[in-house]
Amino acid sequence: VEARIHHAAVSIFGAAGWAGFNLDAVARQAGVGKGSLYLRWNNKEDLLLAALQEKVAFVTAVDTGSARTDLIELALQMLGLYLGDGGPAAMRLGTDFRGAKGVEAHFEALRNSQIAAARLVVKRGVSRGELPRATPITLLLDTLCGGAMMHAIASPQSLHRDSAKVRRYAEELVDFLVAAVVNRSASTA
Amino acid sequence: VEARIHHAAVSIFGAAGWAGFNLDAVARQAGVGKGSLYLRWNNKEDLLLAALQEKVAFVTAVDTGSARTDLIELALQMLGLYLGDGGPAAMRLGTDFRGAKGVEAHFEALRNSQIAAARLVVKRGVSRGELPRATPITLLLDTLCGGAMMHAIASPQSLHRDSAKVRRYAEELVDFLVAAVVNRSASTA
Repeated sequence: VEARIHHAAVSIFGAAGWAGFNLDAVARQAGVGKGSLYLRWNNKEDLLLAALQEKVAFVTAVDTGSARTDLIELALQMLGLYLGDGGPAAMRLGTDFRGAKGVEAHFEALRNSQIAAARLVVKRGVSRGELPRATPITLLLDTLCGGAMMHAIASPQSLHRDSAKVRRYAEELVDFLVAAVVNRSASTA
Repeated sequence: VEARIHHAAVSIFGAAGWAGFNLDAVARQAGVGKGSLYLRWNNKEDLLLAALQEKVAFVTAVDTGSARTDLIELALQMLGLYLGDGGPAAMRLGTDFRGAKGVEAHFEALRNSQIAAARLVVKRGVSRGELPRATPITLLLDTLCGGAMMHAIASPQSLHRDSAKVRRYAEELVDFLVAAVVNRSASTA
């Protein structure tokens, strides 16, 4: 039942945003009684936050021993976020938090998890001599995360569940951006 | 009056999405009578479309004679789109068109204008020998457009009207991505 409620909550928020989100709609879509929903959650923000924590997960840095592979893992996490169940909800977080402090905080925590993960991966890559010391972390993160988001918005739904194609895009995106990092440093050195 | 109505329409759609968009809210925010609004527009979709056409403009390719400068102009148009009055509305278009065919068509036309502009700029750059023939247009566009969108979402509001800072970001973004295009080609050549 809880999984059904979380799924209904992120899908309604994803489709209609904060303005279209309410406990009645969630109860209807999840097929549970309004009474039991109101008994558990005082307000719609608490319910949405519980669902977001489940379905719009933070990003974490993985240590594979290679900057390229670490960045591909990061790109895959971002693509998984935007192409998955919670994708439309994740894309709304940047614009849809007005009037909901907890939702804004969740967006900031998600963004901070992306910054921390990118920083850690780049730091390790620099210390192993794979990436230049002057790697522009913000540009790299904007283009990695923004590229993943644009791909999710622009590519046909049928490709979203094709994990081989998603991995190929992650590899192409990372190879493209690593070439930027390395060449930029070579030309200014 | 028309400018006020358009401004109110994109700002309400930007803040609350399609689910929170209606003629009454637009009339209230624009300070015009509901009667005159209903007289002009049969439905909320026609009103939103008129406002989007005004405030969420399509992108066009500029021919400055240099691929780098053409791409910077393109990045500036995208940053202008996402950082301007119609920014929140523009960011919503990719997720918020459910139930509104005309809004979906506007999003597709916007996306197509971006693809056409990127293609034209790259084609000219290739013919002048500035860009490699194998320039990956989709990756370049995803990261250019996605980078501009992430920058608009993540950077503080106070920077949005600082045109010197916006131009600097456009230049950094384009130089980063041109380095990717050139280096990628060099390493596979």
